[in-house]
Amino acid sequence: MLHYPNGKKNIRAAKNRKQENFSNKHANRGMTLEEDLNITNEYYLSIGKAVIHKKPTPVQIVNVSYPKRSAAIITEAYFKLASTTDYNGVYKGKYIDFEAKETKNKTSFPLNNFHAHQIEHMKKVDEQGGICFVILKFVYLDTIYFLEAKHLFYFWDNQFQNGRKSIPFMYIEENGIQIPLGFNPRVDYLSIIDNIYFSKGRINHD
Amino acid sequence: MLHYPNGKKNIRAAKNRKQENFSNKHANRGMTLEEDLNITNEYYLSIGKAVIHKKPTPVQIVNVSYPKRSAAIITEAYFKLASTTDYNGVYKGKYIDFEAKETKNKTSFPLNNFHAHQIEHMKKVDEQGGICFVILKFVYLDTIYFLEAKHLFYFWDNQFQNGRKSIPFMYIEENGIQIPLGFNPRVDYLSIIDNIYFSKGRINHD
Repeated sequence: MLHYPNGKKNIRAAKNRKQENFSNKHANRGMTLEEDLNITNEYYLSIGKAVIHKKPTPVQIVNVSYPKRSAAIITEAYFKLASTTDYNGVYKGKYIDFEAKETKNKTSFPLNNFHAHQIEHMKKVDEQGGICFVILKFVYLDTIYFLEAKHLFYFWDNQFQNGRKSIPFMYIEENGIQIPLGFNPRVDYLSIIDNIYFSKGRINHD
Repeated sequence: MLHYPNGKKNIRAAKNRKQENFSNKHANRGMTLEEDLNITNEYYLSIGKAVIHKKPTPVQIVNVSYPKRSAAIITEAYFKLASTTDYNGVYKGKYIDFEAKETKNKTSFPLNNFHAHQIEHMKKVDEQGGICFVILKFVYLDTIYFLEAKHLFYFWDNQFQNGRKSIPFMYIEENGIQIPLGFNPRVDYLSIIDNIYFSKGRINHD
């Protein structure tokens, strides 16, 4: 959220950030939430516990070139805004759907980490009986929370009635569940789902 | 499956085919199965019946340029092989997962329309209790079939034991279910799921 006088550094910072996202070299820095979740999901898949994947980045392809004897090259494309969440899949027959975000804030989670289409999508999943939630990481506190989507909906809708633009950390601490971090699985969010949905008879079997 | 003497026409044909896929102009030709399914899924979404989306095309992004005052441009990227199926989502709380393919063959559906990773994915979804199937369109017969994934698994595995490389049309006619085509929904595959999974008590509620 830094503002530079002429905007140039901002562009470079954005560029570096993006390039990092598409690089495989992470030797000298901590894992991002996305990397941790990918490894977690691979582990769940490998032991036959769940099938949950991150969706590909949505891209609008404009130009493709077809060199002889080699693979097609996309030469012009643009990032599209996702109309759904990033992660979905199946666990014990139930549909799982979530978004994962991290913040450098310490006292609250800014709602501008989400956009309207994603909230709409999550509400529809919720109505359809899917298990829908967000995974929120506070980078400086190095803690990750599981928060059922209904809490996010409340704060999201409320901001348009002059409510606050973020979810207070204390609210998340009280209403979310801290996800245990380990080696394998790294971010064991399915243990939370077991507790919430599969042991208290909350699943509707109609 | 035509073979040209010098391969050049083949390249051009492939190029035209690809460009068609990324064009929005379909005025003078019939709808592809993908287009029909996208419209069907939009309809299901709009009436609150199900939340099912096609996943974005997986792309390996290599270079991104960031022009001043305009959106980031992806200047080099490559198509990646999908590690999952194209469609998934939630219907009545259950996880739905399928692949849709069309063939110009008249007597059988070639197995090379699928690749090993997709079959692996579908088997894992099946083990997890998800509802997994394929939608197969015979273009020249203008008929679309719903086939539970277990049938595909049988033929897929069997091909490696000197079995045939395609599923006979007659097998699909007998073991699949023809999907009714209409205006809205256009390809009503959820009506088939209702019949198979939600009316005969086949859903396991454990």
